[in-house]
Amino acid sequence: MFLTGTMKINTQGHLEVGGIDTLELVKEFGTPLWVIDEEGLRSNCRVFKEAFTRWGDAVVAFASKSLCNMAVCAIVAQEGLALDVVSGGELYTALQAGFPADRIIFHGNNKSPEEIRMALQAGVGRIVVDNFYELDLLNSIAEEYGTNADILLRITPGVEAHTHEYIQTGQIDSKFGFTLTDGQAMEGIKAAVSSPQINLAGLHCHIGSQIFDMEPFRHTAALMMKFIAQIKEETGQEIADLDMGGGFGIYYAQEDSPVDPEEWAEAVMTTVQEKAREYGLRVPRVIVEPGRAISGPAGITLYTIGSFKEVTGIRKYVAVDGGMTDNIRTALYGARYSALLANKADQEPVETVSVAGKCCESGDMLIWDTRLPKLESGDILAVFATGAYNYAMSSNYNRLPRPAMVLVRQGCAELILKRETYPDLLRNDLLPDRLKSR
Amino acid sequence: MFLTGTMKINTQGHLEVGGIDTLELVKEFGTPLWVIDEEGLRSNCRVFKEAFTRWGDAVVAFASKSLCNMAVCAIVAQEGLALDVVSGGELYTALQAGFPADRIIFHGNNKSPEEIRMALQAGVGRIVVDNFYELDLLNSIAEEYGTNADILLRITPGVEAHTHEYIQTGQIDSKFGFTLTDGQAMEGIKAAVSSPQINLAGLHCHIGSQIFDMEPFRHTAALMMKFIAQIKEETGQEIADLDMGGGFGIYYAQEDSPVDPEEWAEAVMTTVQEKAREYGLRVPRVIVEPGRAISGPAGITLYTIGSFKEVTGIRKYVAVDGGMTDNIRTALYGARYSALLANKADQEPVETVSVAGKCCESGDMLIWDTRLPKLESGDILAVFATGAYNYAMSSNYNRLPRPAMVLVRQGCAELILKRETYPDLLRNDLLPDRLKSR
Repeated sequence: MFLTGTMKINTQGHLEVGGIDTLELVKEFGTPLWVIDEEGLRSNCRVFKEAFTRWGDAVVAFASKSLCNMAVCAIVAQEGLALDVVSGGELYTALQAGFPADRIIFHGNNKSPEEIRMALQAGVGRIVVDNFYELDLLNSIAEEYGTNADILLRITPGVEAHTHEYIQTGQIDSKFGFTLTDGQAMEGIKAAVSSPQINLAGLHCHIGSQIFDMEPFRHTAALMMKFIAQIKEETGQEIADLDMGGGFGIYYAQEDSPVDPEEWAEAVMTTVQEKAREYGLRVPRVIVEPGRAISGPAGITLYTIGSFKEVTGIRKYVAVDGGMTDNIRTALYGARYSALLANKADQEPVETVSVAGKCCESGDMLIWDTRLPKLESGDILAVFATGAYNYAMSSNYNRLPRPAMVLVRQGCAELILKRETYPDLLRNDLLPDRLKSR
Repeated sequence: MFLTGTMKINTQGHLEVGGIDTLELVKEFGTPLWVIDEEGLRSNCRVFKEAFTRWGDAVVAFASKSLCNMAVCAIVAQEGLALDVVSGGELYTALQAGFPADRIIFHGNNKSPEEIRMALQAGVGRIVVDNFYELDLLNSIAEEYGTNADILLRITPGVEAHTHEYIQTGQIDSKFGFTLTDGQAMEGIKAAVSSPQINLAGLHCHIGSQIFDMEPFRHTAALMMKFIAQIKEETGQEIADLDMGGGFGIYYAQEDSPVDPEEWAEAVMTTVQEKAREYGLRVPRVIVEPGRAISGPAGITLYTIGSFKEVTGIRKYVAVDGGMTDNIRTALYGARYSALLANKADQEPVETVSVAGKCCESGDMLIWDTRLPKLESGDILAVFATGAYNYAMSSNYNRLPRPAMVLVRQGCAELILKRETYPDLLRNDLLPDRLKSR
């Protein structure tokens, strides 16, 4: 289940991806190493695009917050997807990679004036407005520039898709969006409609992460269409775009049961179309924003096994040369991951171990209780579905340099992110003369 | 309680630190901004050093994992403390700052061969050996270099302390150290003693973080002294150093009740001395490793308030221009923080708000439900006790550039960490030619 895209176990019993033995990657690039399977990534882009567009007018926007660097932005651009960015830094990266600005959607609950200026100057396709303060700010900056801003208004629909509490976003008690249930959303719509520099192009919502049940999407689409009908009734305004956000669940470990992207498309597109008929509305263009579902399964992290510790009768710890610095999701969300030994990929699991990182912190664990073949120091551990939110959330905690990232395809590996060096860690450090010891 | 060191509210009603109005710092350096109160930092170094050394032979080692950059290392060196490092990156930083290698203690549960080589070449004072694998590795690398390694053996004493409570039989299930209770620790001692390139200089233990009750330290010191007596009996080996680790609790918010460092010193030093008498042992040199207690209270983060969101009847959110990228502790540990408005520091609190970060994630919250004066966009929020584990754990999540850090003292502010720029974010990015759009 965790072998996706071009990943397979080769005749030598090693994990292979993009037509390359992962042990060759380790030899060339060292560990820890993030590996992105280009064909897998592209195929994930296409699967979602085809699933939605076959039902009608739909746009798939890759949520770059899950994995943002120039190479990934460029691949997503080539695949014809749109792109979500949530900051000036993501926008800058996308533009540097040549991503067409008009296919960029700019998100965020607290965009700075500088970020808004940057977005307007670049000519991004849509700005997602999160609150009244931002609506005013955007309107006045757009006025400065003598331009109009095409916006989606972020609505908090009050649907809570059940997943880990840190990654839920549909609930009412959220820092994001205009609350639907207390009339704030309609107030926001009216404020947007009456803002001279604002063009209300559509609505946005997002109900959570790692969702395996398509019912909350149907329910949310129905709520949003009902709201669109109310908007038309109360303001005369037609809503062109309905952005249903992301949240499509992927496989990390045994307890995950992802569905086919077709099911997501069917749930969303048929509900929107049915409700449009029911309310006598033009069918809006649907936008969806998979991030993790595109980048996650396309990524693997390779680590070298170092030390061991046996706690009698309790647990065997094995430590790798990375940790919460390159994957904080286990510590932060209690996330689960699947792994195998890349150099013993054809061997049967014989022992249960817990994989610790090398950070000086008890919470620095990557996988609790996983079954692996007999382990030795120097073995290469491959952790799956690390393409999303691993590099994105990486840190230099404990002053660990961040890993390199390689893009693999048809037997070729290209470095798309250089490994940090010790001098890199000091690049922004300044030591005042008076503190110098010599 | 959260105004420490040189922090005060000045006659203009603004927060001042190091003799500088924080609004001046914001004007010069922008936000988010990490501010380090140099006198506060130095005073914290001295307080711990004096508290322990007055009782006898003791070394205070600053745990640099809490805050590691060249300027801080240099200040700690000037104050005559020792330094804990937990990686090659921290060691590199310390050495570049001119920190004397013989006052450095090298920690970590999975040091790489390269890190061990680096430590031996630099001539660090002590290497803390975490497990059998590492003992062998260190012995063989020391042999390569024709040198001996002075080590502390990390013992897991089975005492687990959290704030006000402790478990005498806890923390066995840890990735760190040699378990005391099942005989593994004595086995480790014997292995160390019989390793030709290893000089067993002492023992190390660490029982937790944010500890306000000194009883677990007493209990642990007694356990360790008993073990030292057993070591002498079974191997004839005298133990010169007893490293009691860190964990001394600091004030973050109302529920925290830190004690005087003197109480920690008294608890540890008197127990060690009494037990030495009781067992007829030479009194070992005591090492303690405060990190957070030295760096934490000396740091403030300044943010600019941006957007607002009122959830009717539930909560008012205010968003700042930073978030989990510069302080992940709220999301990761449920940490609490105290804050005030730097530009309205003399005003009474009138509303309860929750402070959100700007990351595109519901869990990106800095403070839940804190009382503040009437807020407006553009106000400057000062969050206290952010000197430890804020910069240290910072990330570029959402492609947010990391903040600058300034050192303030006697009316002067010196930049010790440059603010990251958008181009900085792309410094290690590589875009293969075939993916370039033009």
